[in-house]
Amino acid sequence: MRIGLGQFDAVVGDLEGNAKRMREIYGQAVKQGVDLLVFPELAVCSYPPEDLLLKKHFLDENRKIVEKLATDCPGITIVAGFADYYRGKTYNAAGVLQNGRLANVYRKGLLPNEGVFDEQRYFEPGNKPMVITLDGLSIAITICRDIWDINWLGKFLKGAGQIDALLNISASPFHLGKIKTRQDVVGDCAKRFNCPVGYCNLVGGQDELIFDGRSMFADATGKIVAMAKAFEDDLLTADITKKGKAVRVEPQPDSSVADIEAPEEAYHALVLGTKDYVLKNGFSKVLIGLSGGIDSALTAAIAVAALGSENVIGITMPSKFNSAETIGDAEKCTKNLGIKFMTIPIGSVLEQFNGSLEKVDGWDSRGLAYENLQARIRGTILMSLSNQFGALVLTTGNKSEIAVGYTTLYGDTAGGFAVIKDVFKTMVYKLARYINEINGREVIPGSVIDRVPTAELRPNQKDSDSLPEYDLLDKILKGYVEEDKSAQQLIDEGLPKEAVNRVIRMVDRNEYKRRQSPPGVKITHKAFGRDRRLPITNRYNHCITSV
Amino acid sequence: MRIGLGQFDAVVGDLEGNAKRMREIYGQAVKQGVDLLVFPELAVCSYPPEDLLLKKHFLDENRKIVEKLATDCPGITIVAGFADYYRGKTYNAAGVLQNGRLANVYRKGLLPNEGVFDEQRYFEPGNKPMVITLDGLSIAITICRDIWDINWLGKFLKGAGQIDALLNISASPFHLGKIKTRQDVVGDCAKRFNCPVGYCNLVGGQDELIFDGRSMFADATGKIVAMAKAFEDDLLTADITKKGKAVRVEPQPDSSVADIEAPEEAYHALVLGTKDYVLKNGFSKVLIGLSGGIDSALTAAIAVAALGSENVIGITMPSKFNSAETIGDAEKCTKNLGIKFMTIPIGSVLEQFNGSLEKVDGWDSRGLAYENLQARIRGTILMSLSNQFGALVLTTGNKSEIAVGYTTLYGDTAGGFAVIKDVFKTMVYKLARYINEINGREVIPGSVIDRVPTAELRPNQKDSDSLPEYDLLDKILKGYVEEDKSAQQLIDEGLPKEAVNRVIRMVDRNEYKRRQSPPGVKITHKAFGRDRRLPITNRYNHCITSV
Repeated sequence: MRIGLGQFDAVVGDLEGNAKRMREIYGQAVKQGVDLLVFPELAVCSYPPEDLLLKKHFLDENRKIVEKLATDCPGITIVAGFADYYRGKTYNAAGVLQNGRLANVYRKGLLPNEGVFDEQRYFEPGNKPMVITLDGLSIAITICRDIWDINWLGKFLKGAGQIDALLNISASPFHLGKIKTRQDVVGDCAKRFNCPVGYCNLVGGQDELIFDGRSMFADATGKIVAMAKAFEDDLLTADITKKGKAVRVEPQPDSSVADIEAPEEAYHALVLGTKDYVLKNGFSKVLIGLSGGIDSALTAAIAVAALGSENVIGITMPSKFNSAETIGDAEKCTKNLGIKFMTIPIGSVLEQFNGSLEKVDGWDSRGLAYENLQARIRGTILMSLSNQFGALVLTTGNKSEIAVGYTTLYGDTAGGFAVIKDVFKTMVYKLARYINEINGREVIPGSVIDRVPTAELRPNQKDSDSLPEYDLLDKILKGYVEEDKSAQQLIDEGLPKEAVNRVIRMVDRNEYKRRQSPPGVKITHKAFGRDRRLPITNRYNHCITSV
Repeated sequence: MRIGLGQFDAVVGDLEGNAKRMREIYGQAVKQGVDLLVFPELAVCSYPPEDLLLKKHFLDENRKIVEKLATDCPGITIVAGFADYYRGKTYNAAGVLQNGRLANVYRKGLLPNEGVFDEQRYFEPGNKPMVITLDGLSIAITICRDIWDINWLGKFLKGAGQIDALLNISASPFHLGKIKTRQDVVGDCAKRFNCPVGYCNLVGGQDELIFDGRSMFADATGKIVAMAKAFEDDLLTADITKKGKAVRVEPQPDSSVADIEAPEEAYHALVLGTKDYVLKNGFSKVLIGLSGGIDSALTAAIAVAALGSENVIGITMPSKFNSAETIGDAEKCTKNLGIKFMTIPIGSVLEQFNGSLEKVDGWDSRGLAYENLQARIRGTILMSLSNQFGALVLTTGNKSEIAVGYTTLYGDTAGGFAVIKDVFKTMVYKLARYINEINGREVIPGSVIDRVPTAELRPNQKDSDSLPEYDLLDKILKGYVEEDKSAQQLIDEGLPKEAVNRVIRMVDRNEYKRRQSPPGVKITHKAFGRDRRLPITNRYNHCITSV
């Protein structure tokens, strides 16, 4: 029997569009002799549909679409994820489509509710395993988290009889290196049940989440024998055959299992996330404020890879604090990328603004408020152009500066999508070098990569005036933000106490800025956003004030 | 036996501060002859601490604080909410403090995970009831949601033996009219177990949530016999006595149970929410952009009630589109409120900005981008003053306009706290009239209340040019946003199809603006924010396109 894993980029809420795409893949699968075609978790409505699931009319329509899909694709068996509203309760379900109808429904047993997940907000857990028989083979159907607790799954499937193969439909969000964990989970599952496993994962960017595909087959020994493309639609097929008690899996055609590493993995995730956010929200063009620094250069390079150079516009908005070198670098960058370039100096507006504010007693034309004013004038120019020309503004802040609030709210945070908001500054450098490497030339000028980081909001400003060096900063942030370590733990690990305390205080105090910042691509284990939910009003003091 | 319900305004994360306040209330309770003192759910760390609960060091400290509290308050029995980390799992718990130690721990059985709640993200459910014996009375302890499913509670307490009284510690978020539901829940619980119930609720504003106190006692017939103050700290006491099988509850001193209605209830919630957000986040002063319209006038009046007139500064930022009447009204309003007033005209900055943008091909000095530019200049002025002087900016948008995106991102949405973001425009008028009524004079000028709503961003603009009349708009929004009704349902209820479709489309398209807007006080059943989680990228079409 031939199984096809049809991973595809589904759009949240686009019930008709997703069904259309599934019909196309069905056509392709039939041509390839597939007997059983598998689509990802919640393929019909895409993942996560969030509070759309609280709307009864949405649930009704999503069921109609599944039933229509069954009618439209009667030739082979299909397993497809949808939201199942049944007797007043909603389930995260897998529909088994056979002979033109929705023949069976499996309901997910384990509902994740941590990290980026809120499934217990929407779904009831199912409590019945499902094993379908096809071509003499007994195939157990599971959904995502079901296989991540193998002891639970063992008990759950205990009374289900013989299992010759196991399918898992998933919408497993990406982070760097997660594929290894996923391969282990799939492999362990195959070993535990001594049978091949077919794992079908979603593709696409949805707000801050990325689904990276890489559907796979494991053989009964737990070895991953085939893997679908990363970050793209794909139809991965394999033949499952039973001889005596042994069940074999043979990929058709032979697929190699290639691993990719950061920064390559990060790059593809950022490109897909940007492309999908922009296009799925009805935009085609983007605007980026180019400072001549590395963050905006990297953002522009990712945007060009995602949307094409003809759809990216770079705007430089120099003031008297910008050096000739950075202004030149911004322009060089746009030439390298082949994008449209505009210069709108902010000097006259800044003067006029400052003149109005100087009439207020106590206004300081050299203080932090004046620095922020420059950033807000730039934000306003970008948003004005966005409103006028219908292009989305991409913001350029990285995770290190967003973490400590080294940003101006409504200034450099103004825009629709924050491409590198989950990319630490140390990774920004790696990505810039990687992009130059794959292009075989300096897309991002070497002078941009080598320059000492500066916001250029006052004379001779350097980031290190206000922040620890980025190597140290990123270490502290990784421990505190991503691993929930205490100040004491970080100090015990050898990080300097003064910097640890200072950074933690900055992270805590700037929650309000992050709350008003645009979404961006999650690439780490724990991103700011739905992954990390801290109160703004929060008097907990994490710092170590005495030895 | 005398029971005291010690409702107080706890601050999230302020473990030491909350414990100090509990010690003060303990002192007061001892003086009043209380035998059993009850504090709200998670009183030690306040509610909701969100992802602080994922930090082991936070959990450890919170336990130490409970143990210290027991040592400090050995005289009487105390029941207090805290987060209990036990054998690798975290529970929403009630500590029973007796004789200087944490004698017993009850763990919440039902964990809400819908609406504004995420308890299953953090807590394991407890599975053991707890009945303590005090003065010969058997008292069952429960936490919040435990009593909201009375059938579940009946089964849960079945083997727990005799129950003479039941306590419930809560952090039950406020919305208009919720007190009636709560009274029913408490009353039904008393009836079901045929015993008095003491219900202790949290007080205070925490980001978007308000806890309104109103702790209460019900007698065994289900009648609410005493209720603590609304929106304030209070210690409500009652004597519980057993004669034969009957258990009586007598409030000490006699407390009347007074209900309040909207808009009075809304007003107090908004004042407390504003006060707590500003003060708990370390601010004392606020800035408000005053347009001469009703929304900013109402916001200023609430701010004055929350913080005192000396802490509120009104800024008017007129352009050529503002009429003499609205400018005059803004000033009149500040005089009525006795607040500081500043005028910063935006004309010259607007001209300079527009001049810079006119150099871009296709810029239109009369279009929507130009209108938004004015709002963003105002937002930037307010934020500049905020940065310079350390005062928090309060935004002035109401729920109706936020719902349909009749706002400028980084313009009128720029600020730290959105006081009336959950107040429909129709309720804005009621609140304005209510404020004038309780003040016995026109705090908000009649001309402001009577003027046809306008954003004054172009000549002769009226809100109704772009939006349905507010009476109709608010009806559609209530159905669509708060009740999750479909377009078809709303049309079937008699609302006009064109307006329903148009409004729904506007609500859906503007999710991205709401995502970047500041938090504000939740007063309705369903507020924008943690209560309503919709994807930005969302192609679901709710509209009815054919008959």
